[in-house]
Amino acid sequence: MSITDKLVAFARAEPEAEALTMMRLSLFDWATCGIAGAGEAEFAGFRAAVLRSEGQGQAALLGGGSAPPPTAALINGTLSHALDCDDTHFAHIGHPSVAVVPAALALARPTQASFDEVLAAALIGVEASIHVGLWLGRSHYQAGFHQTATAGAFGATLAAGRLLSLSPDQLRHALGLCASLASGIKAQFGTGGKPMNAGLAARSGVEAALWAQGGLTGAADGLAGPLGFGATHHGSADDEHLRRLGQAPWHITSISHKFHACCHGLHAMLEAVKGMNVTVEDVEHVQVFTNPRWMSVCNQTDPDTGLAAKFSYRHTAAMALSGIDTLDPDSFSDAWSRHPQLVALRQKVDVLADETLSEMQCRVEIATVSGQKRIGSHDLADTIPIAARREKLQNKARAFLGQAAAEALWQAVDTSDLPAFEAALMRSKTVAKQP
Amino acid sequence: MSITDKLVAFARAEPEAEALTMMRLSLFDWATCGIAGAGEAEFAGFRAAVLRSEGQGQAALLGGGSAPPPTAALINGTLSHALDCDDTHFAHIGHPSVAVVPAALALARPTQASFDEVLAAALIGVEASIHVGLWLGRSHYQAGFHQTATAGAFGATLAAGRLLSLSPDQLRHALGLCASLASGIKAQFGTGGKPMNAGLAARSGVEAALWAQGGLTGAADGLAGPLGFGATHHGSADDEHLRRLGQAPWHITSISHKFHACCHGLHAMLEAVKGMNVTVEDVEHVQVFTNPRWMSVCNQTDPDTGLAAKFSYRHTAAMALSGIDTLDPDSFSDAWSRHPQLVALRQKVDVLADETLSEMQCRVEIATVSGQKRIGSHDLADTIPIAARREKLQNKARAFLGQAAAEALWQAVDTSDLPAFEAALMRSKTVAKQP
Repeated sequence: MSITDKLVAFARAEPEAEALTMMRLSLFDWATCGIAGAGEAEFAGFRAAVLRSEGQGQAALLGGGSAPPPTAALINGTLSHALDCDDTHFAHIGHPSVAVVPAALALARPTQASFDEVLAAALIGVEASIHVGLWLGRSHYQAGFHQTATAGAFGATLAAGRLLSLSPDQLRHALGLCASLASGIKAQFGTGGKPMNAGLAARSGVEAALWAQGGLTGAADGLAGPLGFGATHHGSADDEHLRRLGQAPWHITSISHKFHACCHGLHAMLEAVKGMNVTVEDVEHVQVFTNPRWMSVCNQTDPDTGLAAKFSYRHTAAMALSGIDTLDPDSFSDAWSRHPQLVALRQKVDVLADETLSEMQCRVEIATVSGQKRIGSHDLADTIPIAARREKLQNKARAFLGQAAAEALWQAVDTSDLPAFEAALMRSKTVAKQP
Repeated sequence: MSITDKLVAFARAEPEAEALTMMRLSLFDWATCGIAGAGEAEFAGFRAAVLRSEGQGQAALLGGGSAPPPTAALINGTLSHALDCDDTHFAHIGHPSVAVVPAALALARPTQASFDEVLAAALIGVEASIHVGLWLGRSHYQAGFHQTATAGAFGATLAAGRLLSLSPDQLRHALGLCASLASGIKAQFGTGGKPMNAGLAARSGVEAALWAQGGLTGAADGLAGPLGFGATHHGSADDEHLRRLGQAPWHITSISHKFHACCHGLHAMLEAVKGMNVTVEDVEHVQVFTNPRWMSVCNQTDPDTGLAAKFSYRHTAAMALSGIDTLDPDSFSDAWSRHPQLVALRQKVDVLADETLSEMQCRVEIATVSGQKRIGSHDLADTIPIAARREKLQNKARAFLGQAAAEALWQAVDTSDLPAFEAALMRSKTVAKQP
């Protein structure tokens, strides 16, 4: 059986209970990021350009209004990745929810699905995308492909195909067509093209499924067959882990959520510092030890913009030591990046590569003025109990959206209330954050 | 200067006279194929599925109706490649017009462009796509990518960007975004995914240009830069021929049009046979010598469907010897593929690989009942005088669309009459072919 055969069968799988609980939290977090992202001025022109041509339709849009399902998937996928604060799966090497959730949501009204059906479709799609990401492997990512977009498109196809109740044969054609639709390269990082990649993945899933339902035929095994997507796109075709598809624990249960509004490479360090309870006055010297991969990703030494600060160990360490909330996107302003007290403090921080640490681990050593040596560490792979994770995500929603909007959103997700959920999405952040 | 710099500059180039004449013929031929393709039942469900969600808009659709520009580009690109009878550029390794013309046409009304402005934009886009195809090279095609779709998307971006009067900076972002949008693999060949690839390319060009105009940023050099489209997609990055960009003769002047409704690999043979004037009764034995590449493409020995017959040297040689019109798509029926006289005749045909022949050349040797040895040959690279080419394309339009529709279409193209041209496109083939 090829991965395609397995995916076709998995489309109708029964959601596993723990995985479903985690998907509900991820859906809540996706909405938090999306509502906040809808307020980003950088994407207002894009959104307007898309809607000017594609007009109105059945599916709800982040920030208000509606659009045809493929267009809604494109816009919602893009806006929900605008802040880059959405969930990550480190083994998939991608952001699963931004590619898949918008595809499922776009078909909610056309298929008259319930909240729980949308949630289950999103879960199947997310889990499938993680498997496809693992199957494409590190070779695909290293060659320059953006797994969020590529593996994400196949996951989105599964989510859309499930909601549309495609037959196995139709779903096979949809996955075949997706092999031409799926695309997205890492050269976009640092531009609006990165969030767009997520939006394209979501739209590709919706379109592949709708067009296959309309009778369009595609490659028999466009993903794993000869000259298929994997073979042409530097995929490692690692079938080994596929045996786990559909077996507990599902991959989504090891998904990571962002609890700081900056690059994920900084999060283990921030958690380590938070746990150390050292005051600014007591800091003599700080050493941050991290996996070598991150040294070229998020080690800007003297950032002078809010955006650059999101990729700086030294600056964010200074923020955390000073008690500045790294969860609030507004903390990453140009002004804070140049604040004299933070600039002085970050001079005391050294960042060192340590190959013994995984990409999810960090160790921090602080020499204090009083002559002590304090050591802290954190591993993002450590399990966070569900209740604690929920509370952290609720705090994040409050920081991103304000108290009232965060409560309304949680209420909708917790009670499986689709109209209330869509209403929350369509509220713009600017309005929502009013006290 | 990278290819991207050159393309940005080329977007505003003055069309060269001979190239423009050829583009006018290619536009006529594109419309012929598109109007005929719009009648293909295989794509009716796809068309309906797209329009059901994306609704109406400003741009004219093949077969009637209108849609938003990106959607119109998608549908018109797909339908015009449905019959696989559109133009080919052998060095580009692709079909230039189906990817570019629909993009230019989709923006005609929104930009209030004249026929001649659309024609010039199509020409710039087609010429650019051939250059990008050459730059990506044979390595890209051999790896499994469909140049029509990939190089085509960049050409479509240039055509759309020219009509939208994008600034050089906007056009650079559009090409950067296109590096994530451009996609399409050869695994789709033989399915509806192949024409879809052309449609995706046309849509990608329209979207990349519109979104960049809306302010969306993309990779600074998404095509040729580090981790760009070329580097990630097995491109050969052959800068050598780029010096010719914009210098006469333009590449489009060596474009090939199909004068037989079957695989392009058979055309040199059919032309050779046509020139030999041997009667069926006089045929003892036929030897067809062709480039080895075609042996795996179009050498079906005993086809029993009309589709299979389009990929058979033996069968089409028998058709040509019997005087059956290989220009008329209706000649490729299941019934004709099983006709006893043709089946008997094709038993007398042998097909042999000959490495001394180019992909555009064929040699035919016929031993006659009367004991003669007749030799014919043809090279598709031989120049066809413009007047002769126009006449052949007009014959093709008559065969595909019927006399009246063919005349009306030619009149519109020849007099640069955009409303009449759009009206011709929107007529369905079924209606048009009535006497």
